[in-house]
Amino acid sequence: MDKSPKIGIIMGSDSDLPILQKAIDTCIEFDVSYEVKIISAHRTPDLHAEYAKSASERGLEVIIAAAGGAAHLPGVTAGHTILPVIGVPIKGKSLDGMDSLLSIVQMPSGVPVATVAIDGARNAALLAIQILAIKYPELKRKLEEFKIKLAEESKNKNEKLLK
Amino acid sequence: MDKSPKIGIIMGSDSDLPILQKAIDTCIEFDVSYEVKIISAHRTPDLHAEYAKSASERGLEVIIAAAGGAAHLPGVTAGHTILPVIGVPIKGKSLDGMDSLLSIVQMPSGVPVATVAIDGARNAALLAIQILAIKYPELKRKLEEFKIKLAEESKNKNEKLLK
Amino acid sequence: MDKSPKIGIIMGSDSDLPILQKAIDTCIEFDVSYEVKIISAHRTPDLHAEYAKSASERGLEVIIAAAGGAAHLPGVTAGHTILPVIGVPIKGKSLDGMDSLLSIVQMPSGVPVATVAIDGARNAALLAIQILAIKYPELKRKLEEFKIKLAEESKNKNEKLLK
Amino acid sequence: MDKSPKIGIIMGSDSDLPILQKAIDTCIEFDVSYEVKIISAHRTPDLHAEYAKSASERGLEVIIAAAGGAAHLPGVTAGHTILPVIGVPIKGKSLDGMDSLLSIVQMPSGVPVATVAIDGARNAALLAIQILAIKYPELKRKLEEFKIKLAEESKNKNEKLLK
Amino acid sequence: MDKSPKIGIIMGSDSDLPILQKAIDTCIEFDVSYEVKIISAHRTPDLHAEYAKSASERGLEVIIAAAGGAAHLPGVTAGHTILPVIGVPIKGKSLDGMDSLLSIVQMPSGVPVATVAIDGARNAALLAIQILAIKYPELKRKLEEFKIKLAEESKNKNEKLLK
Amino acid sequence: MDKSPKIGIIMGSDSDLPILQKAIDTCIEFDVSYEVKIISAHRTPDLHAEYAKSASERGLEVIIAAAGGAAHLPGVTAGHTILPVIGVPIKGKSLDGMDSLLSIVQMPSGVPVATVAIDGARNAALLAIQILAIKYPELKRKLEEFKIKLAEESKNKNEKLLK
Amino acid sequence: MDKSPKIGIIMGSDSDLPILQKAIDTCIEFDVSYEVKIISAHRTPDLHAEYAKSASERGLEVIIAAAGGAAHLPGVTAGHTILPVIGVPIKGKSLDGMDSLLSIVQMPSGVPVATVAIDGARNAALLAIQILAIKYPELKRKLEEFKIKLAEESKNKNEKLLK
Amino acid sequence: MDKSPKIGIIMGSDSDLPILQKAIDTCIEFDVSYEVKIISAHRTPDLHAEYAKSASERGLEVIIAAAGGAAHLPGVTAGHTILPVIGVPIKGKSLDGMDSLLSIVQMPSGVPVATVAIDGARNAALLAIQILAIKYPELKRKLEEFKIKLAEESKNKNEKLLK
Repeated sequence: MDKSPKIGIIMGSDSDLPILQKAIDTCIEFDVSYEVKIISAHRTPDLHAEYAKSASERGLEVIIAAAGGAAHLPGVTAGHTILPVIGVPIKGKSLDGMDSLLSIVQMPSGVPVATVAIDGARNAALLAIQILAIKYPELKRKLEEFKIKLAEESKNKNEKLLK
Repeated sequence: MDKSPKIGIIMGSDSDLPILQKAIDTCIEFDVSYEVKIISAHRTPDLHAEYAKSASERGLEVIIAAAGGAAHLPGVTAGHTILPVIGVPIKGKSLDGMDSLLSIVQMPSGVPVATVAIDGARNAALLAIQILAIKYPELKRKLEEFKIKLAEESKNKNEKLLK
Repeated sequence: MDKSPKIGIIMGSDSDLPILQKAIDTCIEFDVSYEVKIISAHRTPDLHAEYAKSASERGLEVIIAAAGGAAHLPGVTAGHTILPVIGVPIKGKSLDGMDSLLSIVQMPSGVPVATVAIDGARNAALLAIQILAIKYPELKRKLEEFKIKLAEESKNKNEKLLK
Repeated sequence: MDKSPKIGIIMGSDSDLPILQKAIDTCIEFDVSYEVKIISAHRTPDLHAEYAKSASERGLEVIIAAAGGAAHLPGVTAGHTILPVIGVPIKGKSLDGMDSLLSIVQMPSGVPVATVAIDGARNAALLAIQILAIKYPELKRKLEEFKIKLAEESKNKNEKLLK
Repeated sequence: MDKSPKIGIIMGSDSDLPILQKAIDTCIEFDVSYEVKIISAHRTPDLHAEYAKSASERGLEVIIAAAGGAAHLPGVTAGHTILPVIGVPIKGKSLDGMDSLLSIVQMPSGVPVATVAIDGARNAALLAIQILAIKYPELKRKLEEFKIKLAEESKNKNEKLLK
Repeated sequence: MDKSPKIGIIMGSDSDLPILQKAIDTCIEFDVSYEVKIISAHRTPDLHAEYAKSASERGLEVIIAAAGGAAHLPGVTAGHTILPVIGVPIKGKSLDGMDSLLSIVQMPSGVPVATVAIDGARNAALLAIQILAIKYPELKRKLEEFKIKLAEESKNKNEKLLK
Repeated sequence: MDKSPKIGIIMGSDSDLPILQKAIDTCIEFDVSYEVKIISAHRTPDLHAEYAKSASERGLEVIIAAAGGAAHLPGVTAGHTILPVIGVPIKGKSLDGMDSLLSIVQMPSGVPVATVAIDGARNAALLAIQILAIKYPELKRKLEEFKIKLAEESKNKNEKLLK
Repeated sequence: MDKSPKIGIIMGSDSDLPILQKAIDTCIEFDVSYEVKIISAHRTPDLHAEYAKSASERGLEVIIAAAGGAAHLPGVTAGHTILPVIGVPIKGKSLDGMDSLLSIVQMPSGVPVATVAIDGARNAALLAIQILAIKYPELKRKLEEFKIKLAEESKNKNEKLLK
């Protein structure tokens, strides 16, 4: 796996960055190269279309798109590319994230978005890495180690509890 | 008011046409010229962008956009034009229209969509005509007549009830 | 466009004013004259009916009505006028704004209300200005500039992120 | 209790009549005089205001108002009168009655509406009769008999089940 | 109207008292005598049944019952008495009051509860007073004054806004 | 385990019987004696209180209570007895069972109701049998056989699918 | 009742412990032996399966399982054991506990979970004790005392209120 | 891409098969080999664990898991494997699919599930193929053709409409 960005992380607004930071951190943790952009399906639609359409030929292999409210970024991205698009619903000031979730997950037939939990940026990155792992064996190994670590942490918490 | 289309009616899929027919009928009833297109923010995104970007210079003055599920058509249209965009949430097979409603109404600051009721295509057209009426006095007159007729119908129903 | 108020901004209670301030600020930003009133469909129904009925002849061209909870102000206003009425659902102490949203958007056939997002007062004003722009060319130009500025801000945020 | 109408039953549209019929039947069952009207807060707002404002002096003592969707009729009625207003949320084609329920029950402080269940027209009439019964002793007696009958019916169903 | 309690105010838990205080204050404001009790359909069901069954003969004419979560107090009270029962849904730690609202308003046919808004204790008392007013003319006069005062306050807020 | 009824199955209305039939059938399938009653917390509250209070001394060991809408029967039963009470939310004509579910599951601290899925009468009976099985070893054995049968059926469906 | 653990309390994450503490405290209050474990259906699925499958033969008689979000722990536990499983939905950072509640309560036919209120850990333990009480008479007596104490506390609060 | 199954399609019950058929048809349409199994996280948990744990070494590269109600199959599968797991929420008899959606999408950190729309089986398969396409270039080409065909169909519908 060369060092060109494999995962594109895009968000509609810089207010989403604190949530998306967990996706970035996860890419770093697994040593997968990524790029991050603030790009909006509503405010910079042409830039966004260009970004999404060229994503595949520029070498990206998965796109993570996060948005809140009437969250169109993931779905519109999926309209422009055949790459898998992972959608992260961001919880806004009202409706507790339900609006973002439904705007992202309920895509029409033909144009899927792989939706994760509300504010689930870490899982979005893990899912992206799982996807890349079917092509890059070194990621498969790292994911297996990660799964063991996850179990270990859970067991340690249990042991700490027993004391 | 010349005969070039003033209202653009667009929908993501021909399955939305039975609902949108009421918008078309209302344009005919008020003798306002319109155009209808099936155009998708997900399946034909470039066509759609071109349509929305050129709408104003082609003489359209209001756009009615209908969509169901993760309903992005109205909001993405609004991203491409400064024309007022009216969104019609279409009720789908699950969630009773709530997904479409939230996907359309919860737009981020800077890019409004004028949302009407779920499946509210007739009201979308009436709203479009109210908007046009601030420019075209003949529509104002027709709307006043319509309002009187609406009241008359209600009174007639009441009288029929009393019998 | 003369200096008489074109946009009427009404709210049921002064507790809604902090939210509505963004609509006022947007009118000032676009140099569109407006008037603001606290007027209630429940507490001062006659004043309200008089206001709504006379709005058109007093020169108003669009009305923005905001309300929370069982939010009747926008819909009842629309019952009294043929002007386009924009409804702003205000988030209250419970139900996260869902009650206001549904009370405003689900209008019966014949009496539309152009609904924007919960607490979406800035978008309500932008929508009002988009509506006025079909009549007043100077607003069209300002909206085009605004759209460019919106894109610029988004691009600047992206560049700041890259640093 | 003289024979002038004590309960006013109003609805926004004749499509609500099948549901409201149960309220009418209940008035007949308890021999309480009533009047029924189709009157709309949106389509015939002036008629409605006049109706609600004059209700008390015309001798009405309780008003039952039913509406669906953005259901404003009960609340706006309550704005015009000091009579107790009972609201019946009518289930519409989408959202399963939740829109009507919230539009009716979430009234602002100062203007209560006594809300019953979705499509709960019989209970609306029973509540109206309970209210009248604090003034008219003959209704109190009838309600006591009704409560005994209700219990008897339940017991009979139980006995039928045991067989 | 003599000085024996006319309105019974009951709640399931003393944690509901801060909300119910507004109902108490409203009774005092209108000089209507009331009684307050903490009494639970779940924790003291026999006391509660006795209370509700004897309410009418003890001279109460309306009961206000408040409860949160699986809010059974209003409905079970209504099962024991023919007095009008007003239900106040109390917002709890989760679900934003929706659980209380539905537990109170969706009563089965035969046993109505007059439901007011979530945490709407003041409106519950106002509704109780509207009900009493059909029997006690002095309350009718006070309610008319109250309605005028409500309008005045709204007008004053509007004038303050204009300055 | 003697033949006196161990499980009491109660419902507010005979309209709930078709759903509850599955609970009855399950008792028969496991050869556990039961009794069935139509008894209402709203229509026959005294009978119900008597039933619930005497349940334990009459030899019942678990109670299954089903109700729809503002579903108070399970919770009020739990207020009268220390027996485990299993609540079955019944789906009504509106709100898709959400009202029943919340009315049953959101019980206040001190008075639990073991809630199963909407219309989940078979699971209610299975849960009752699981509870009885901690005391009656023959039921434990039957449940183990049932679990094996459940797995077998699933495997058979899979094999049928493969063909 | 010997001193080996009768109630197994499990949770998916140590972040759920503050809520579960009330279940633990209740076990101590009733002097019922219990064990507590952090064990996850997602992170340590094999440990969890082993735990659930061996629960009955190790002497546990009831299992309390708590989880938030997509809350699978209670249901998957129920898949592995014939012991009664009590599910506690934990409120997470979004959706106000609705996701946990539905993930736990809506179990398919054949595999029940006894669901209590969101964050209802105390009631989960009380329900577990009610279940054990059908086998252990000393718990029956303690529950009867508890019920009396619950009523006393309610009465004391009422008396305090009257002063 | 050899002919061993790459996509595992699993469902909890054969009642989900009519929905899942669209996923199967899509695999056939793209000539991607797949396997289908009825396997339940609740009824055959050991079989399921074995299936999920061995999936990767048996050559599967993506798993599609569908379930309704308290839909645990996708999440529990994801707990056992590092393969990407796609979850399809199935709409059940109540709650309109909301229970399945939340049970699948709201996964805890560390264990993602790629969720698609309610009953969105075709999109689940398309997403699986998009994932495989990052490794198998022939699928990339087919997806590009599919995207063109999708646009063509939309354009044809539009042209048909214009006639």
